[in-house]
Amino acid sequence: MASWQEYLAQNRERFIEELLEFLRIPSISSLPEHADDVQEAAEWVAERMLQAGIEGVRILPTEGHPVVYGDWLHAPGKPTILIYGHFDTQPVDPLELWTHPPFEPVIQNGRVYARGASDDKGNMLIPILAVEALLQTEGKLPVNVKFFFEGQEEIGSPHLPPFVAANRELLACDMVVSSDGGQWSEDQPALSVAFRGLCALQIDVVGARRDLHSGSYGGAVQNPIHALVRILDSMRSPDGKILVDGFYDDVVFTEEDRRLIAQVPFDEAEFKAELGVTELFGEPGYSTLERIWARPTLEVNGIWGGFQGEGVKTVLPNQAHAKITCRLVANQQPARIRELIAAHIKQHTPPGVKVNVHPFASAADPYRMPVDHPGNQAARAVHLQLYGKEPYYVRSGGTIPVCSLFLQHLGAYTVNFAFGLKDEQAHAPNEFFRLSSFDRGQQAYCLLLHQLATVDSAD
Amino acid sequence: MASWQEYLAQNRERFIEELLEFLRIPSISSLPEHADDVQEAAEWVAERMLQAGIEGVRILPTEGHPVVYGDWLHAPGKPTILIYGHFDTQPVDPLELWTHPPFEPVIQNGRVYARGASDDKGNMLIPILAVEALLQTEGKLPVNVKFFFEGQEEIGSPHLPPFVAANRELLACDMVVSSDGGQWSEDQPALSVAFRGLCALQIDVVGARRDLHSGSYGGAVQNPIHALVRILDSMRSPDGKILVDGFYDDVVFTEEDRRLIAQVPFDEAEFKAELGVTELFGEPGYSTLERIWARPTLEVNGIWGGFQGEGVKTVLPNQAHAKITCRLVANQQPARIRELIAAHIKQHTPPGVKVNVHPFASAADPYRMPVDHPGNQAARAVHLQLYGKEPYYVRSGGTIPVCSLFLQHLGAYTVNFAFGLKDEQAHAPNEFFRLSSFDRGQQAYCLLLHQLATVDSAD
Repeated sequence: MASWQEYLAQNRERFIEELLEFLRIPSISSLPEHADDVQEAAEWVAERMLQAGIEGVRILPTEGHPVVYGDWLHAPGKPTILIYGHFDTQPVDPLELWTHPPFEPVIQNGRVYARGASDDKGNMLIPILAVEALLQTEGKLPVNVKFFFEGQEEIGSPHLPPFVAANRELLACDMVVSSDGGQWSEDQPALSVAFRGLCALQIDVVGARRDLHSGSYGGAVQNPIHALVRILDSMRSPDGKILVDGFYDDVVFTEEDRRLIAQVPFDEAEFKAELGVTELFGEPGYSTLERIWARPTLEVNGIWGGFQGEGVKTVLPNQAHAKITCRLVANQQPARIRELIAAHIKQHTPPGVKVNVHPFASAADPYRMPVDHPGNQAARAVHLQLYGKEPYYVRSGGTIPVCSLFLQHLGAYTVNFAFGLKDEQAHAPNEFFRLSSFDRGQQAYCLLLHQLATVDSAD
Repeated sequence: MASWQEYLAQNRERFIEELLEFLRIPSISSLPEHADDVQEAAEWVAERMLQAGIEGVRILPTEGHPVVYGDWLHAPGKPTILIYGHFDTQPVDPLELWTHPPFEPVIQNGRVYARGASDDKGNMLIPILAVEALLQTEGKLPVNVKFFFEGQEEIGSPHLPPFVAANRELLACDMVVSSDGGQWSEDQPALSVAFRGLCALQIDVVGARRDLHSGSYGGAVQNPIHALVRILDSMRSPDGKILVDGFYDDVVFTEEDRRLIAQVPFDEAEFKAELGVTELFGEPGYSTLERIWARPTLEVNGIWGGFQGEGVKTVLPNQAHAKITCRLVANQQPARIRELIAAHIKQHTPPGVKVNVHPFASAADPYRMPVDHPGNQAARAVHLQLYGKEPYYVRSGGTIPVCSLFLQHLGAYTVNFAFGLKDEQAHAPNEFFRLSSFDRGQQAYCLLLHQLATVDSAD
């Protein structure tokens, strides 16, 4: 019987053809007219899983697009791994910037061009193929595996939280491995160990019962814009520290965090050139990567009040508004941070105005996993073998709510194990995926599942 | 021969009929479709002046609506008085709130209701009638009189500055008397001695070359809204003092100013109730009337940047904007104040953004006349005689550019001598003018011209 390595090599052309077939389904989750295509993609995935030898395959409804589940659970005493990915895609506009039609994949120079190639169809197909190779060559898997693929990631997975909460038993696992994401570069692996969370609120400042003439009243009545400006300015020191009482209290930032982030190369000059700024700005005492990856923020996303037209209007407006979001890091809690900000606003409201603080439901817990989590140790071993290099321990300043979701409902951390690269135009025209990554990913997953067999199971 | 008092009494009915005729002309200066009506009003005024015995009557073109000029210059050695008023009106909308059609005047309970009744047709007709009474009964006027009536006051007199500058000789005078304005109340006279000036500018703050994702960049790049908020907040102390260096340097505010303003009754509780605020706010150390009448302001009239829609957008915007106007008091100069603010902005610009300051052409010098100006002394004597009371020395927080214009080009101060009252709905539906004010105004102008005969002429 061939080895899984030989199986992957022998079936390479077929796997690529299957990827192209998968990519031809325009499963854009944000557009209602593509809902049937998302369903078709689910069915394609389910069919492909069955063909790979995965058992218990089913398409499960949510309040929105469906999820696809399947498992192989014949490794008693071994850990159970939940493999996550998504089969929906971003929209394609602006279409005129695409060199080829986005759902008619073409291969050029070892790259397959299509919407969803890198994010996430190419990446999510990999573990299915790896499992097939193991089952076909070894007759079994080294660990128990569950697959959980969703069709609404690109619209923020709105119906996933209740689904996961309601299916705790079905999805129970020792860890999640996510096939959505990427590596640092073609020759440098990375492990993602933290994402920032989010909370959001709006401030509404109201003064007099109507707009006033600035001649007849100006100087004697509080101006809501001035009041708002005062409140907002009080939240941040001139040098960039957030001054909301207690804001940093729950933040975890260790010397080890600093050491790991410092190992990641960062070109500040290039970063400034990309943004078109001559100077960066942020919390004193932290590097740029630390500020984006490991420190919380309080940003005004929008502000408005009074006259915004051409020229001059001598109005003393009676309202002013601002929207704020905070990016949060572990162990800050969105609700707690909103409360602290509301208390700060109350304390700093100038005389003569009323201020209302409206919290938005949009919120996400920050995510932070132990760097030496057994899943990360296994992934590191695979990376060392495939790349010959230690992985960087990286983070994202953005929010990946699914990781917090799994941690909250399944008690399981998510190991990020995917092979997209930064230049692959995810969410943009001419998205592509490297066939070299497709190949390497399949090997990596075979190796990973073997590595994970050494991890203690919770059972 | 009858006295002027008898003449006014005997012709009262005719004068009222003439006022109604004048009010029937819908001379709305802001609406192009009423341009002919403004012209008709000018012709009506010219005709009425001729009928009154005024000489040299002519309608003079400007770049916009015309002006009407006339004079009577047969009082050698006596001062020359330029009487000012305007024959254009505000628009009438919302029309549905009018009890009667706005250009079909009706008399009810001693009030004539019509658009322009108080502002300014009723008031500007008064000096014409007074001059007729004097000429008809005394055969001459006690002083030299010039009339200067305009048709574009309600749109800010955009074409008056070049006209006045080009007609310095025609309009030369010892003082101006304005028939546009009012008294404190039916039984309390007032003399207006100061109006605030104006300057205006816009601040544009630009950060990165595009809007940024607050997750991927937030914390590491200056947020233009935060930068703008910092700049604006730096301009005013928490307790309301403007912190722009040199802002108050040229302000004239004397103990005499304070004493005169303190004599004017002001009900703070009523003021707060009108505005719907529980607390007033302004420059420390000054009363509310002082703040509005005699102190300069710096107000943000509008602010905008980033996301203003419903809900949440995690954007780090790349621009933010604000509009500022300052109300100025003597002897502040609009251009100088704009420069000081621009310097302050430059000095307080946080790192990581570029700030552009755009000055607007809209500007007006503040106006302040000596309380004991000979014209005020004469007006005071008339008020004492008619009301039996000393006038209040009042001001306006708004801008009346024509007073500064006359001072600049003719070197003449403007005595405000008009009989509107605050409740007469100027600029609003159901504007009216009291016939009692119409009568009293005619007497007052006859008395004033006699009083002014005792003032030294510049000739």
